[in-house]
Amino acid sequence: MKRTLFLLLCGMLSMLAVAQEVASPDGNVRLKFYLDGTRPTYELAYKGREVIRPSHLGLELAKDKHASKGIQETDLMDGFSISDTKTSAFDETWKPVWGETAKIRNRYNELAVTLGQQSTGRSIIIRFRVYDDGMGFRYEFPQQSDLNYFLIKEERSEFAMAGDHTAWWLPGDYDTQEQETQQSRLSEIRGRFEKAVNWGNSSVAVFSPTGVQTSLQMKSDDGLYINIHEAACADYATMHLELVDGQTTQLTTKLKGNSNTYTPDPTPSTYPLPAPMTFVSHLTPDATGLKGCMQTPCNTPWRTVIVSDDARDMLSSNLILNLNEPCALDDTSWIHPTKYCGVWWEMIVGKSNWHYTDDYPSVQLDNIDYTKTKPHGRHAANTEKVKRYIDFAADNGLDQVLVEGWNIGWEDWANMWKRDVFDFVTPYPDFDIKGLNEYAHSKGVKLMMHHETSSSTQNYERHIENAFDLMNRYGYDAVKTGYVGDIIPRGDHHYSQSMNNHYLYVVKEAAKHHIMVNAHEATRPTGLCRTYPNLVGNESARGTEYEAFGGSRPDHTCILPFTRLQGGPMDYTPGVLETQLKNWSENPNFVHTTLAGQLALYVTMYSPLQMAADLPENYAKYMDAFRFIRDVACDWDDTKYLEAEPADYITVARKAKGTDNWFIGGKCDENGHKSIVHLDFLDEGRKYECTIYADAKNAHYEHNPKAYVITKKTVKKGDVLKLTEAPGGGFAVSLMAK
Amino acid sequence: MKRTLFLLLCGMLSMLAVAQEVASPDGNVRLKFYLDGTRPTYELAYKGREVIRPSHLGLELAKDKHASKGIQETDLMDGFSISDTKTSAFDETWKPVWGETAKIRNRYNELAVTLGQQSTGRSIIIRFRVYDDGMGFRYEFPQQSDLNYFLIKEERSEFAMAGDHTAWWLPGDYDTQEQETQQSRLSEIRGRFEKAVNWGNSSVAVFSPTGVQTSLQMKSDDGLYINIHEAACADYATMHLELVDGQTTQLTTKLKGNSNTYTPDPTPSTYPLPAPMTFVSHLTPDATGLKGCMQTPCNTPWRTVIVSDDARDMLSSNLILNLNEPCALDDTSWIHPTKYCGVWWEMIVGKSNWHYTDDYPSVQLDNIDYTKTKPHGRHAANTEKVKRYIDFAADNGLDQVLVEGWNIGWEDWANMWKRDVFDFVTPYPDFDIKGLNEYAHSKGVKLMMHHETSSSTQNYERHIENAFDLMNRYGYDAVKTGYVGDIIPRGDHHYSQSMNNHYLYVVKEAAKHHIMVNAHEATRPTGLCRTYPNLVGNESARGTEYEAFGGSRPDHTCILPFTRLQGGPMDYTPGVLETQLKNWSENPNFVHTTLAGQLALYVTMYSPLQMAADLPENYAKYMDAFRFIRDVACDWDDTKYLEAEPADYITVARKAKGTDNWFIGGKCDENGHKSIVHLDFLDEGRKYECTIYADAKNAHYEHNPKAYVITKKTVKKGDVLKLTEAPGGGFAVSLMAK
Repeated sequence: MKRTLFLLLCGMLSMLAVAQEVASPDGNVRLKFYLDGTRPTYELAYKGREVIRPSHLGLELAKDKHASKGIQETDLMDGFSISDTKTSAFDETWKPVWGETAKIRNRYNELAVTLGQQSTGRSIIIRFRVYDDGMGFRYEFPQQSDLNYFLIKEERSEFAMAGDHTAWWLPGDYDTQEQETQQSRLSEIRGRFEKAVNWGNSSVAVFSPTGVQTSLQMKSDDGLYINIHEAACADYATMHLELVDGQTTQLTTKLKGNSNTYTPDPTPSTYPLPAPMTFVSHLTPDATGLKGCMQTPCNTPWRTVIVSDDARDMLSSNLILNLNEPCALDDTSWIHPTKYCGVWWEMIVGKSNWHYTDDYPSVQLDNIDYTKTKPHGRHAANTEKVKRYIDFAADNGLDQVLVEGWNIGWEDWANMWKRDVFDFVTPYPDFDIKGLNEYAHSKGVKLMMHHETSSSTQNYERHIENAFDLMNRYGYDAVKTGYVGDIIPRGDHHYSQSMNNHYLYVVKEAAKHHIMVNAHEATRPTGLCRTYPNLVGNESARGTEYEAFGGSRPDHTCILPFTRLQGGPMDYTPGVLETQLKNWSENPNFVHTTLAGQLALYVTMYSPLQMAADLPENYAKYMDAFRFIRDVACDWDDTKYLEAEPADYITVARKAKGTDNWFIGGKCDENGHKSIVHLDFLDEGRKYECTIYADAKNAHYEHNPKAYVITKKTVKKGDVLKLTEAPGGGFAVSLMAK
Repeated sequence: MKRTLFLLLCGMLSMLAVAQEVASPDGNVRLKFYLDGTRPTYELAYKGREVIRPSHLGLELAKDKHASKGIQETDLMDGFSISDTKTSAFDETWKPVWGETAKIRNRYNELAVTLGQQSTGRSIIIRFRVYDDGMGFRYEFPQQSDLNYFLIKEERSEFAMAGDHTAWWLPGDYDTQEQETQQSRLSEIRGRFEKAVNWGNSSVAVFSPTGVQTSLQMKSDDGLYINIHEAACADYATMHLELVDGQTTQLTTKLKGNSNTYTPDPTPSTYPLPAPMTFVSHLTPDATGLKGCMQTPCNTPWRTVIVSDDARDMLSSNLILNLNEPCALDDTSWIHPTKYCGVWWEMIVGKSNWHYTDDYPSVQLDNIDYTKTKPHGRHAANTEKVKRYIDFAADNGLDQVLVEGWNIGWEDWANMWKRDVFDFVTPYPDFDIKGLNEYAHSKGVKLMMHHETSSSTQNYERHIENAFDLMNRYGYDAVKTGYVGDIIPRGDHHYSQSMNNHYLYVVKEAAKHHIMVNAHEATRPTGLCRTYPNLVGNESARGTEYEAFGGSRPDHTCILPFTRLQGGPMDYTPGVLETQLKNWSENPNFVHTTLAGQLALYVTMYSPLQMAADLPENYAKYMDAFRFIRDVACDWDDTKYLEAEPADYITVARKAKGTDNWFIGGKCDENGHKSIVHLDFLDEGRKYECTIYADAKNAHYEHNPKAYVITKKTVKKGDVLKLTEAPGGGFAVSLMAK
């Protein structure tokens, strides 16, 4: 009797709105969970300061169209009681296959709350992991007789901000993330939204004038840095955030923009609006307008909040990687960081072309014999040119040569909803695929494959096995994929559940063939590279190519490490030393950094995949500066973020993998920056040959970008380097252990 | 100068609205084409009687969403002038790989009209082929600088009927064609529509209360038989017909039914409504609501009108096959007509199951080890049972044994929008795939593969190569595919352009592996089996399975040859001799024919693929009747349709391939039929052993279905057989040349 009573009392206690609390191992981050009535609610604090004010959690479900099965859906929003809570601690150190550091510590305290919904008999778990630099939570849906399949109308995870923070944001869009970052107060997002949208982009599908993308970096007036993103987004739609501001009357149910493919759910949410300055999750829909089709057991990605009062902690955080699953590949010996050049920039700039002939207004691959067409003479991916790039790579320690435009179909490939756009195996007549691979291999270089899908994913999946077989046959081990234009299957979006499944499908299939993947225009990464380390890169943001399309602001690369790079490395393709394109092409644009600033990016923009993007003939003009690109590593045993402020400056030192050499990069915005680098991280008693690639005194990204000074000296631990970065400039330092 | 003037005059003449006429080789069918103002218009007559009254032709185009490219679309509806006309004659005899006759004559007169649209500078061709038994036309879009890509909002091909005909129709639906056929006046369609929809079906997407499917069979009050269908529908959406009746105020732009996936184009057509009793084409949309994404050069399928004053000509017509392209396969030696039995009917009836275990409320293939689950004991596809079926096939001259439910995943597979539903390669633990194939082969029998896709086409395409490899490895050469439930990619429909592309993709990939395909729930056939003769069958209509779900009317199989079978053979799965299911199962339903009627179907329902659908233990009870199923051929050198009236009766004699034996089948509706068969087609001076399988005197499909009489006698050319078919009955006759 006593025991029963005790259990009963425990049960009753758990029904009360008693807050569960869990703190980070160092105690600085505190998470509180409770039921607000019957709605799951959480709060987050950092060193006693509010980070997330009381915020509801839940999901609205779509009515099952097979209602004849007798299931009338009830939202997973309220009606909950707490049926169980579990807390636990975790501390483990793991070694990434490649990364910024040789080891990563994964230490957190966990709270798992099981919630029962009486009216449906369903139960779900909300799991929180609290780290010293933030926290993640996710929804888990155990398999149960009353919850096997469900359709997500919208996830409603709230993130209530404690103030009108400064934010660095991109307009939320289902199909592009290549806009310039906006810097504004939260309250200013609505007013700046229209201008912030990259309307010229081919696929603009914005959904709300306060809808923004993640990773979203913010800074509070009292100096807290807060970042919201997600981790381990696999087979789930990519999350956007819709800000409830003073003008919000209801959460978005309608699509805005020039997409005509969306079925808006005409029923607005019936739940009360959260307080102003609250972000609410907004998932990317598929062609039906649904946000997710789920089968239990399953879970959402982790929703992450990184927080610190030191901006450098934002950059060194491993929270997102840690929230991903461990490596799923048994053998990773074939995965390797890669430095490469390629037949690419000259096409982006407009000097040569991907396509081969102008004979036809459009082509159907099955009906054209390219050997019988008339080449227009500007086809870049020709055997002779590729040989020159191979020679350049071999001469300069670059591992691979990317060649775009090697395969037939580039005459009309984008934005026509053309399904059978490429076959990924047939080279143009002037590209000797066998001979070039043999030539490259004889010089210790590999070619890098290129698969532009034109977003015709059905076509790509039909050809992928043959395409990877061809790569294996000729000795390719890395592929750059591309997803330009509207998705096929038609009506789908780049960041939907089905497309996220596709991107990961490609990575998994590639792994079977020992192929590394660098996916452009694919969904923004969320740390999946921990689980599938052959995902060595993504674009998923505004890359260097935009410098040829009009340019990006000088602060662009001082923001990206805070935002885009949180989820994984970016193939930013730096190294354009001839910053004035008119010097060698008809293109009037220029790169919005100094030459030294371009060198800095190899260190500040972490990636295991680094391109030397400029043309060999341009590098020939700056071989002393190019030396840094030759020397710099792209895999690291250690990393020290020395200085950082979003959109202002980043200074970082990294220790090259398996060596005692360090490399330092400093990059700043249009205002310049004076950097003081304490060489405290060097080995005691050791001497280093230090080469400094710095902006010259009068350097300026616009007026005098190529003014640089190279200085050599010997340094030791404790020495201090004082470096002045020009407007839009930067510096690079190599420290070779003697 | 004279020549220039002459050409100029010719040009001017062609601008006038002078009708172009072309007649069939025998002169009975006459097609007239002209411009009504600037709109393409045609009329059709048969022996001087109106078949199609003046009807417009054209397509409405969707505005290109990439309007930034400067293309504002103009419909291809009007604004045309005739810039060229060409007439020609064609006469060729070809041999089908399998068929009703050994040779097929393709004889027609052709009119090709090139139409120029001045405002756009575009030109299209409308091509008519006029046969002795009807005509086909299609739109052709040559490659041209101003017409490379276009989006079809709707095809507007009109078929203006000359009277309020009797029609045998199915409700137009984007996802099912398994309804009972309705017989009514055209003017009665609207009133009967709601009741005609099979609302219980999982995927009901009807679009208009006067929308019907093709092939549509009609009969005029003055005895003309008219059939509208299409030929060679590949990479184009399946056509429905919307009837403009007295109540029509505008053509349909909105979707009706319980599908929630369609974005209706809110802009109604601005073209004037055609006259009442006109059918207008209505294509199946994809997930975006678009009807077609086209790249020139391309063309639509042929729109076909078969016409005669003799119903038998409807059944013997080869017009649809003739309008398809010749065989595209170099080697067809591996394609063979097939008689088969299978582990199927006992599951349909409910006596056993496809799935293996009840351990889980739902399954994820990657997470379950079926060898560790508890079998429920009702799994049909087990080694022991399949061996019995193999023995039965071997003992009775059947070529193959279909086994459904052999592969893991059947625990929850339908209508859940479950992408990764099957892998098509992993057998359940109790199905010894290797041993069973070896056992079958040792007895001269093959197993037939089954690939239920659950309409998750993305999943099927991902696995198809491995699945076909497995078939090759074990010696399967035929696959039954299935498309039950909602399409994945989500939002798409069974009969859209993209799905039609998928079905043909599967057939082409199968051909590479020398695999024959029998696709169930796929789009209704349009004669593509001429081009790809490994497409040996389709379901695409209400099959025998419905007899276990409540039944089909007795006239059902007297309609199908007029409608569904116009485009190609159906895997109707006849041969259920134990017509009362309660005699061996808990299923209270019964088959709506007599036993003799079941035998008749092997002759009346032409197919190179014929199942003996009943269980071996049921056949054991009727071995004398089963003899006909053993004996009957499924490939033919000649066919004579002796009697026919839609939904009333069909009597047909066929000469077995490579022999002098004939088989005759007669099938009738619920009213019974007295058939008089003149054996004029037999060889002069030859004797035949004639076995007649007939309804007994008091037979009745409902009250006394299994009363049959088998009679043997010797017959010769010129003899007459008088046969009485019971209500819902029929007869079968074998004539073995002595």
